[in-house]
Amino acid sequence: MEFTAQQIADFLHGQIQGDPSVKVSNFSKIEEGKLGTLTFLSNPKYNQYIYDCQASIVLVNKDFTPEKEISSTLIRVDDAYQSLATLLTLVDQAKPRKTGVSPLAFISDSAVIGENAYIAPFAYIGENVVIAPNATIHAHCSVEDGVKLGANVTLFSGVKIYNSCVIGDNCTLHSGCVIGSDGFGFAPVEDGSYSKIPQMGNVVLEDDVEIGANSVVDRATMGSTIIRKGVKIDNLVQIAHNVEVGVNTVIAAQTGISGSTKLGKRCILAGQVGIAGHLHIADGTIFGAQTGVPSSVKKPNQTLQGYPALPIMTFQRASVVYKNLPEIQKQILELQKQIQELENKIKK
Amino acid sequence: MEFTAQQIADFLHGQIQGDPSVKVSNFSKIEEGKLGTLTFLSNPKYNQYIYDCQASIVLVNKDFTPEKEISSTLIRVDDAYQSLATLLTLVDQAKPRKTGVSPLAFISDSAVIGENAYIAPFAYIGENVVIAPNATIHAHCSVEDGVKLGANVTLFSGVKIYNSCVIGDNCTLHSGCVIGSDGFGFAPVEDGSYSKIPQMGNVVLEDDVEIGANSVVDRATMGSTIIRKGVKIDNLVQIAHNVEVGVNTVIAAQTGISGSTKLGKRCILAGQVGIAGHLHIADGTIFGAQTGVPSSVKKPNQTLQGYPALPIMTFQRASVVYKNLPEIQKQILELQKQIQELENKIKK
Amino acid sequence: MEFTAQQIADFLHGQIQGDPSVKVSNFSKIEEGKLGTLTFLSNPKYNQYIYDCQASIVLVNKDFTPEKEISSTLIRVDDAYQSLATLLTLVDQAKPRKTGVSPLAFISDSAVIGENAYIAPFAYIGENVVIAPNATIHAHCSVEDGVKLGANVTLFSGVKIYNSCVIGDNCTLHSGCVIGSDGFGFAPVEDGSYSKIPQMGNVVLEDDVEIGANSVVDRATMGSTIIRKGVKIDNLVQIAHNVEVGVNTVIAAQTGISGSTKLGKRCILAGQVGIAGHLHIADGTIFGAQTGVPSSVKKPNQTLQGYPALPIMTFQRASVVYKNLPEIQKQILELQKQIQELENKIKK
Repeated sequence: MEFTAQQIADFLHGQIQGDPSVKVSNFSKIEEGKLGTLTFLSNPKYNQYIYDCQASIVLVNKDFTPEKEISSTLIRVDDAYQSLATLLTLVDQAKPRKTGVSPLAFISDSAVIGENAYIAPFAYIGENVVIAPNATIHAHCSVEDGVKLGANVTLFSGVKIYNSCVIGDNCTLHSGCVIGSDGFGFAPVEDGSYSKIPQMGNVVLEDDVEIGANSVVDRATMGSTIIRKGVKIDNLVQIAHNVEVGVNTVIAAQTGISGSTKLGKRCILAGQVGIAGHLHIADGTIFGAQTGVPSSVKKPNQTLQGYPALPIMTFQRASVVYKNLPEIQKQILELQKQIQELENKIKK
Repeated sequence: MEFTAQQIADFLHGQIQGDPSVKVSNFSKIEEGKLGTLTFLSNPKYNQYIYDCQASIVLVNKDFTPEKEISSTLIRVDDAYQSLATLLTLVDQAKPRKTGVSPLAFISDSAVIGENAYIAPFAYIGENVVIAPNATIHAHCSVEDGVKLGANVTLFSGVKIYNSCVIGDNCTLHSGCVIGSDGFGFAPVEDGSYSKIPQMGNVVLEDDVEIGANSVVDRATMGSTIIRKGVKIDNLVQIAHNVEVGVNTVIAAQTGISGSTKLGKRCILAGQVGIAGHLHIADGTIFGAQTGVPSSVKKPNQTLQGYPALPIMTFQRASVVYKNLPEIQKQILELQKQIQELENKIKK
Repeated sequence: MEFTAQQIADFLHGQIQGDPSVKVSNFSKIEEGKLGTLTFLSNPKYNQYIYDCQASIVLVNKDFTPEKEISSTLIRVDDAYQSLATLLTLVDQAKPRKTGVSPLAFISDSAVIGENAYIAPFAYIGENVVIAPNATIHAHCSVEDGVKLGANVTLFSGVKIYNSCVIGDNCTLHSGCVIGSDGFGFAPVEDGSYSKIPQMGNVVLEDDVEIGANSVVDRATMGSTIIRKGVKIDNLVQIAHNVEVGVNTVIAAQTGISGSTKLGKRCILAGQVGIAGHLHIADGTIFGAQTGVPSSVKKPNQTLQGYPALPIMTFQRASVVYKNLPEIQKQILELQKQIQELENKIKK
């Protein structure tokens, strides 16, 4: 399908700068823009690429001011990244969707499958599972006994959902993610060994949650581990038992949240962050990459980084001085010597 | 099933404080305690919740001293967490267990399956596999050629065990964990590329080991990667080739142990710890979260944290001063100036 | 099969020191060397073991100088580790390889399977997949629509490849790794929620790439996430969307590379490294374990560690002083006091 700049600008309520009749049929990155494609510029780091870009159309933010001539037709919009999302979603939704339950899937007699489902070969659907309409379940997914899946859920290949977990509407779970595995709970025994605490709870994902590939959300010891509405979790993330993640919080790859910690709403966790157990993290907290969080964060909307998590400007200033530590130690020795000398002089 | 406080106290050898005839039929968390449920109080962080708790029974440690009136019936025991484990295990073991080998599983002709096994649809059991009695093998598990599984082993959905590995009695492996993948061994070649070192060894898990979801234990180059009896490993943990983990050591999520390192007995590794290769870590070592360990730990029973791993009090004292580094640098400059001025005055 | 030291030395162009007629039929580690086995000594940390080693043959580097008598026959070669690799590969390649397409696999009608393939039970091969000759595809692999697999590819059990990805010749993918999952792209919406940016690109692995167990390589938003020829990636590694990893770069376990970052050629990343997004890392860069990289590295062939990544000697010197921070703060207070006293004395 081809669209003109005029059609796209009308759809996005954007302003054209350049030839409104130019046509595109695909997308490209701004560094690799080709004729006949549409690209976008949102991150100023990439501004340099727009001047030589061969893409026929570039979506830019309203306030973008070029420093040189640009050959592409520009469409100015309020938020270029959001507009790109709108266009990509349009194209994505136009793709044909597989439907039908494969005879090579295993569906328990007691499972209830909503209408318009796609269930691939080798999917396993356990007893008393209830699946709402429009589910897409790829090969090798395992949906164990008593699980509930909401409407429009997508499970990519190899998703594992342990028994009794509840997945909300419009959730997307990527390959290899595990929902409802046992929390890591062991009680020490006198002989030095550990006895397992059976994990009797479950996991609840509310609506509009996305979980990345090979991430793990453990079931609660009692009650539920809860991922609230709109939470987005990247790949290889660990969510321990009895954690609660607040509405619209975003968690980047390889981050780990220890048991029973409650994350607030609209938090942003960068990659490889670690949060200790039994903490409360205030709404709107932002943690920089690799931050370690040993204690609760009470004041909302702070940006923190480092170990232990510090206000980001404090952390960055300290981290700049860190490399000078050997010099600092030397300077102190020198000062001690100088003062000794001064004292000696004065005594004389 | 319902039990009275009296029945439970008798079973746990505990002391009742309150109404011995009150009945419970389920468990709850102390923050969410409901009538008709039993909860527990072990971590003092949660003491505050007991005074408004609606649970009918609360297990507490013998030495717990309430600060206010409590409406629940208390059962005082030596170790509330351990007693909870005992009760949960009782309930857990009363659940019916699936048995039978699904006709939709693939079982090699040469495999030997012990009695009373459950093998789910789409499980794959390779050639010459030997499985002891009472195995529970969920969907999409892959048990490759020559693997041995001990008695009472549980493999949750999607566990992958490469050829020739040995799993002891009573081991529990969670979804997506991989046992016996190739160690990361490559020899540099003159042209800048790498040639693979074939990994000819295997992995041995001794008895009573638990491995978390999506964790990986690589096979040895030669010989065995060994996880000793009673070791508990959380989710997303990396155990490299030829590592040995000592008896009853516990490893929290997202920790990584590099090749050929030997961990002692009864160590505790918190989350996101990293240990370099070819090290020896003494028995009873405790590493705090995110610790980096570049060299061997010879003295047993130390608690260490930070990079490089320091005695924990040293680390914590240093980490508190860290944020003052810019101020320290300023103070030194100021001192240098003051001394210069003093010297000038004295010279006059 | 048995080989004499003479046969092995001839094959490796090595020099024998000891009995050329001694025979071996297996490999062992130098700490566990047994009669009838061959072992090797490459890492000087293990020198101590050679003097009591029972192995019949030890491969050593040409320049190895024993400090005591050694009972084993030595074979001196240019590079003992590389020679070991050669021998292990020889043995590995002599193992029989499974072939044939299992009737229990699902193969789409439109898929094209090259000759001499092994496709295990419960493998899923989607529409329009093209598989070159000599593929080895274990159980529970999912190769989605439109994927291309090069010659001699090995997919261990449970590998997941999303639609439209391209895997080069001689690639080895370990269990549970996920290729082509959605990049983590969401545009913030005014109500505080996020809208998903559909990820329309793919992943391209060039030839001779190895990906470890449970690692994830996300597909590009547009264009391709590219892993260049000869790259070796360990377990539990995260490669975000639109990343490019240069030729022969090696990435150890639990490292994460954020979106759109370009890694140069022949880089070495140790374990648990984190690299921020949209960066360029120069060829030959080496990052020590747990390094955090917040900005681009322009000068090639540096070794960096810490947060933010520092030249390794700078980092190590600073990290040694870190533990003295409380002492440093005390010393400064003391100096301030002494200077005050000196000033007072002078005034008098």
